[in-house]
Amino acid sequence: MTNTLVTLENRPSGAVKVSDFGLKTEKVRELKNGEFLVNIEALSMDPAIRGWMNPGTTYIKGVELGTVMRSFSAGKVIDSKNDSFKVGVYVEGLLGAQTHAITDGTGIRIINVENSKLTHHLGVLGMPGMTAYFGLLRRGEPKPGEVIYVSAASGVVGSTVGQIAKIKGCTVIGSAGSEAKCKYLIDECGFDHAINYKTEDLDAKLKEYAPDGVHIFYDNVGGDTLNTALANLAQGARVVICGAISQYNDMGNIQGPANYMKIVTARGYMTGIIVFDFIKEWPAATKEIAGWIAEGKIHVKEDVVHGLENYTETLMMLFTGKNFGKLILTV
Amino acid sequence: MTNTLVTLENRPSGAVKVSDFGLKTEKVRELKNGEFLVNIEALSMDPAIRGWMNPGTTYIKGVELGTVMRSFSAGKVIDSKNDSFKVGVYVEGLLGAQTHAITDGTGIRIINVENSKLTHHLGVLGMPGMTAYFGLLRRGEPKPGEVIYVSAASGVVGSTVGQIAKIKGCTVIGSAGSEAKCKYLIDECGFDHAINYKTEDLDAKLKEYAPDGVHIFYDNVGGDTLNTALANLAQGARVVICGAISQYNDMGNIQGPANYMKIVTARGYMTGIIVFDFIKEWPAATKEIAGWIAEGKIHVKEDVVHGLENYTETLMMLFTGKNFGKLILTV
Repeated sequence: MTNTLVTLENRPSGAVKVSDFGLKTEKVRELKNGEFLVNIEALSMDPAIRGWMNPGTTYIKGVELGTVMRSFSAGKVIDSKNDSFKVGVYVEGLLGAQTHAITDGTGIRIINVENSKLTHHLGVLGMPGMTAYFGLLRRGEPKPGEVIYVSAASGVVGSTVGQIAKIKGCTVIGSAGSEAKCKYLIDECGFDHAINYKTEDLDAKLKEYAPDGVHIFYDNVGGDTLNTALANLAQGARVVICGAISQYNDMGNIQGPANYMKIVTARGYMTGIIVFDFIKEWPAATKEIAGWIAEGKIHVKEDVVHGLENYTETLMMLFTGKNFGKLILTV
Repeated sequence: MTNTLVTLENRPSGAVKVSDFGLKTEKVRELKNGEFLVNIEALSMDPAIRGWMNPGTTYIKGVELGTVMRSFSAGKVIDSKNDSFKVGVYVEGLLGAQTHAITDGTGIRIINVENSKLTHHLGVLGMPGMTAYFGLLRRGEPKPGEVIYVSAASGVVGSTVGQIAKIKGCTVIGSAGSEAKCKYLIDECGFDHAINYKTEDLDAKLKEYAPDGVHIFYDNVGGDTLNTALANLAQGARVVICGAISQYNDMGNIQGPANYMKIVTARGYMTGIIVFDFIKEWPAATKEIAGWIAEGKIHVKEDVVHGLENYTETLMMLFTGKNFGKLILTV
């Protein structure tokens, strides 16, 4: 049996290039006791991947050059010497960007694909959904009647944040980069307001939609978006930093928020979300979100590309805003 | 009787200029019922004054052009039609940059000058001391054994923060702009480490003095200092923004902290201190600080200049780091 894997060959200093990755094949080795083999069906394409290509000074080590790219992947156990993960079950976790993964099960969770799609466990029921859930509820602490603004709102994190905030009784504003995405936020996700940051004046629109300011800003973008949001905070505002996709391709030259003193005058605070800190609570959270999906309160949109050979091009879609919905690469 | 007053004549866009202020005289009018007249003896020269010269989009309105400059001032009641403020008592509050102030007592507090110096009520027992006290204790929440770094440490806020942190059992690092100020921090204020930011590498020194990172960063400076501190946060760190003296002369071009994402990976937060939010608790806090001064646990240093005609030059000392200790202008 042959494994095909995407390897990290170069650490880019700016935008990701095709030459930063390699595509290799190798023979799948024998299982040791306690291990099992996963036939991977789908990969989650996340902004976090860009950070994993760096040497690793943040919350998690960078990927070693020449080794398989780190990836949240999902698939079926097809061989096993581990009684907790029997042949036939479906699993999700850091299984790598490859067709076949051998693991001892550390950090791997069994997923239920009878009542939910396998790919949902990479998105709204996986790391991005958990990031939205815990970032909003534990860090943002929404209260009914408050106004929340979420950037990159049509992505899986942003759309989940906004929809959970609606469930919690908030007024929800989202920004995205196209008319289609804005229409999706209003029509399908039930947002109150959508701002096309490419054609509309973000500052003016925030002042229009949130005249008393924004109580929670959930940021996936950074740069000018963060700075403009800081100028529109309500008293007691919480700024939850999840990501900074506008800055990831030039990490040596990050734009700091000049309006950071607005946090002081708003009597607010800025904090962040590291989703792994809540990993013990993921099962309960996925169950709650699955319930909301079943009730039609959370709408899920996926953007699916096929083939490991398209790994780089698919990853680049995230940084140019070309994806529309949770980006998945099927194997 | 004649009042001499400093008026705001121009809103500077950069550094403060002598022509931004006027010096006028006027006849002191008759008191109305409920009012009293204060013969002002000393003015507090604070970095906040620079913000009050702007049109006012922050926590407090800007000073109107042509009117007396806002100022925390202290003096003696010499005439009164208010039973709560009798002739002979000493008071402190926003009495303006002038020799004689008429007030109805709103926001004015009676101070005890028998056991403490009048000028202390403008510094360590006044707004700056309260800013240090509540910013550190309520926002920074120091715990014994933690490491705190305070910038502009030889100023009244910084030196008070550091000395209270020592009382609370923390390891204290301070930065200042001269050898004399650093020596003062160690020898007189009991700081554990002092960094001369003009001659030493702040990042290298923070890594040396706080190898596991800084638990509390109390910032009075902004700019590169804030950015470097963010790169040296311990897990669970609190960043308390008090001021940004390095940025006040060019508010239209503030340097945002590029390392703001370090707050996320440190699982920390950034917040601020608005001292007026704690005004009801000031009496208890001043009493506690006065006790620490009496016990020799808090050392106070003042830099006194005489004469309202020196108002601008004295204010400018704050922004060039020329003052050494709490800057006071006596009348």
